[in-house]
Amino acid sequence: MNDPRDVVAAKRDGRSLPPADVRAFVEGYTAGDVSDALAAAFLMACLLRGLDDEETLALTTAMVGSGETLRFSGADLPTVDKHSTGGVADGVTLVFAPLAAALGLSVAKLSGRGLGHTGGTLDKLESIPGVRTDLSPEDIRRQVDDVGCAVAAQSPTLVPADGALYALRDATATVPSIPLIAASVMSKKLAIETDLILLDVKTGSGAFMKTLDDARALAERCLALAAGWGRAASAAVTDMSQPLGDAVGNALDIAETVAVLRGDSVGRLREAALLFAARAMEHTRGAGHEEALAQAEAAIGSGDALERFRRMIEAQGGDPHVVDDPAGVLPTAPVREPLLADRTGVLAAVDAEAIGLASVGLGAGRRRKGDPIDPAVGIVVHPKIGDRLEAGTPIGEVHARDRDAAAEAGRRVLAAMDIADGAVAPPPLIHVWM
Amino acid sequence: MNDPRDVVAAKRDGRSLPPADVRAFVEGYTAGDVSDALAAAFLMACLLRGLDDEETLALTTAMVGSGETLRFSGADLPTVDKHSTGGVADGVTLVFAPLAAALGLSVAKLSGRGLGHTGGTLDKLESIPGVRTDLSPEDIRRQVDDVGCAVAAQSPTLVPADGALYALRDATATVPSIPLIAASVMSKKLAIETDLILLDVKTGSGAFMKTLDDARALAERCLALAAGWGRAASAAVTDMSQPLGDAVGNALDIAETVAVLRGDSVGRLREAALLFAARAMEHTRGAGHEEALAQAEAAIGSGDALERFRRMIEAQGGDPHVVDDPAGVLPTAPVREPLLADRTGVLAAVDAEAIGLASVGLGAGRRRKGDPIDPAVGIVVHPKIGDRLEAGTPIGEVHARDRDAAAEAGRRVLAAMDIADGAVAPPPLIHVWM
Repeated sequence: MNDPRDVVAAKRDGRSLPPADVRAFVEGYTAGDVSDALAAAFLMACLLRGLDDEETLALTTAMVGSGETLRFSGADLPTVDKHSTGGVADGVTLVFAPLAAALGLSVAKLSGRGLGHTGGTLDKLESIPGVRTDLSPEDIRRQVDDVGCAVAAQSPTLVPADGALYALRDATATVPSIPLIAASVMSKKLAIETDLILLDVKTGSGAFMKTLDDARALAERCLALAAGWGRAASAAVTDMSQPLGDAVGNALDIAETVAVLRGDSVGRLREAALLFAARAMEHTRGAGHEEALAQAEAAIGSGDALERFRRMIEAQGGDPHVVDDPAGVLPTAPVREPLLADRTGVLAAVDAEAIGLASVGLGAGRRRKGDPIDPAVGIVVHPKIGDRLEAGTPIGEVHARDRDAAAEAGRRVLAAMDIADGAVAPPPLIHVWM
Repeated sequence: MNDPRDVVAAKRDGRSLPPADVRAFVEGYTAGDVSDALAAAFLMACLLRGLDDEETLALTTAMVGSGETLRFSGADLPTVDKHSTGGVADGVTLVFAPLAAALGLSVAKLSGRGLGHTGGTLDKLESIPGVRTDLSPEDIRRQVDDVGCAVAAQSPTLVPADGALYALRDATATVPSIPLIAASVMSKKLAIETDLILLDVKTGSGAFMKTLDDARALAERCLALAAGWGRAASAAVTDMSQPLGDAVGNALDIAETVAVLRGDSVGRLREAALLFAARAMEHTRGAGHEEALAQAEAAIGSGDALERFRRMIEAQGGDPHVVDDPAGVLPTAPVREPLLADRTGVLAAVDAEAIGLASVGLGAGRRRKGDPIDPAVGIVVHPKIGDRLEAGTPIGEVHARDRDAAAEAGRRVLAAMDIADGAVAPPPLIHVWM
């Protein structure tokens, strides 16, 4: 590489970078030849000047090239990867993986931990006593062949440049850039060979993309990157203007996952998981939408999806009885306080991020990377936008370490709910498939 | 301070920063609480989003506050500081300081070293055998009281935040920002109490500000900062579309300084020094322009200015005979090759930066901070824009370590000169006083 400052200067001055320059810069950073300071200046210049599709592809490809790549085969079954950009009560992955496996697909899902107001799939899974998520690629392959699905921690040898760049972006106020987010998301998807990448791009008060336009733009960027690699992909922009499920915690989320897989819960979380599973069947099996959706519903109704979940938990060292008696197996919080509506009316809007942060306040999530979490605590809140509430009647429950924490979380949840007098139409669950 | 990332995020998003936030950020950086990476992201955001006058003032004031401040009194004589933004063959300071002293002003000038295509006053001065520039504040005070002028190295305890931020900007492609340059220049002027700050903002092919508009904008920012501190200041935007003097080196520059002070050289360098000295008399003594200019010319004609230079060199440990016999005292290069015009015509334009870099190529300057320099080598080139050249006749001389280096420098100088057929008007020396 020539002087890497010239690459930064070119982007600073609004010029498009040749792919070779982007690649050399990322390789220089990974090798330690480009300082954190120069990389931070680069990221800020990218954020403010933008990156076109070609530059974003070069960045993503260089990131993938920084580490190993993996292929998980599921015998001859189609392999599907699914990624959510993160939300509140967003337990889709934990329902989707066993459901897709029950439908004859292979799902090897590498996940991260929760940060800020969003929960992490690994944290939820590890609230089940005994569950391990640090599986080797061989463990994952064996489990996928056997059970059809595995949910494991992302290996540090997979896309290490993303780990380094994400930490740098977090430290330098350079996170909110659509091309940089797309490169980060897709580098981890492209490093794992699968037959289909399904993306759930959230938008609304509990999402990183607050507007539909931004969410669409992010989905477009991600799909363009998949196309640049010749990989099949489909993205939905989905609603995060309120918590998707009812449970905002870790053990509480698992209890809700089990309820959905048992067919006991019929809300938006179930609907989202069914729609993603159907989409996977349409893309990999050429099924029609109605047929695929019916198959997915049947996989829950028959208990097949629940059985796959039981076997996945068992294969990963967890107590399989969690599917029979969640309350008996999962950790519980010492204080459970009912959450009562404080006025009568119709739920018009929810600050989902505030509810996520109220749960973090209880100890269920992390303010900073590496913080410990409390698997037992959290919030269950049932009403969705358009639902009618009666003052003084229960709308959920706070699970806390002590009464003060429970009271504080309850206040924050009520403050996050906007209750109106007239009728309010519920938001669509899926804004658009792309 | 709250999370310093919030300050960066606000500037990133185009918001104006409260002065207290700018101050806290700079203080945090100086204290080591803000990382180089976060500061680099901040600098890039400032460069691309801009800083208004209030933000620039807060930045500059915080930088001044990072170190000690000084006051140099010259008995009851008015004190004047002068700063050039840097150019090629820009020896104004070394003529101005003794000239102003001869006019009854006090000049305590703290200078830096040369970098890139521009020369440094300290490097030039140290080409005189014996000269010391590492004077303590007490040394400087004593010398100014006694001689009227001193030119010394800037203390590292003066505006340390500028040193740190400048090095970071150099490393992160965040140098070319008018408010950041203004803050850097003025922090060093405001840290020294004087009765007048004179600024020479260069524009043209040999300057950092290539356009008149940018140079005016920089001068305006600098004057606004002086006004914010209640300090008297005056700025000229001056021509750097060609080397100002004829000598581009270190010992060669000193020889030209002596020639100007002896009245033997009557070109644009002498004219610039006279105009700045007159400006200083107008501002501090209330003199009229014609009267002040006549006094400055008389101070050269009488030998008073030369005498001040001799005493200054002597006071700083150098050989005072340099004023009587420069060629006998100054180091000389082993090879001296005449520079011959390669075609006939009128000098229409000069790439002054290329001539500066040709001199760096000989060893007279630094490619990187800390590089050693060769005091003896350099280039003398006489023609100015509008002058007529005859092919094959001498137009200057290259002083080099060997013939190859001399030939290469000669080629580069000739390539930097654009020779046309018709008449060409010389550019003005001073574009505007502000």
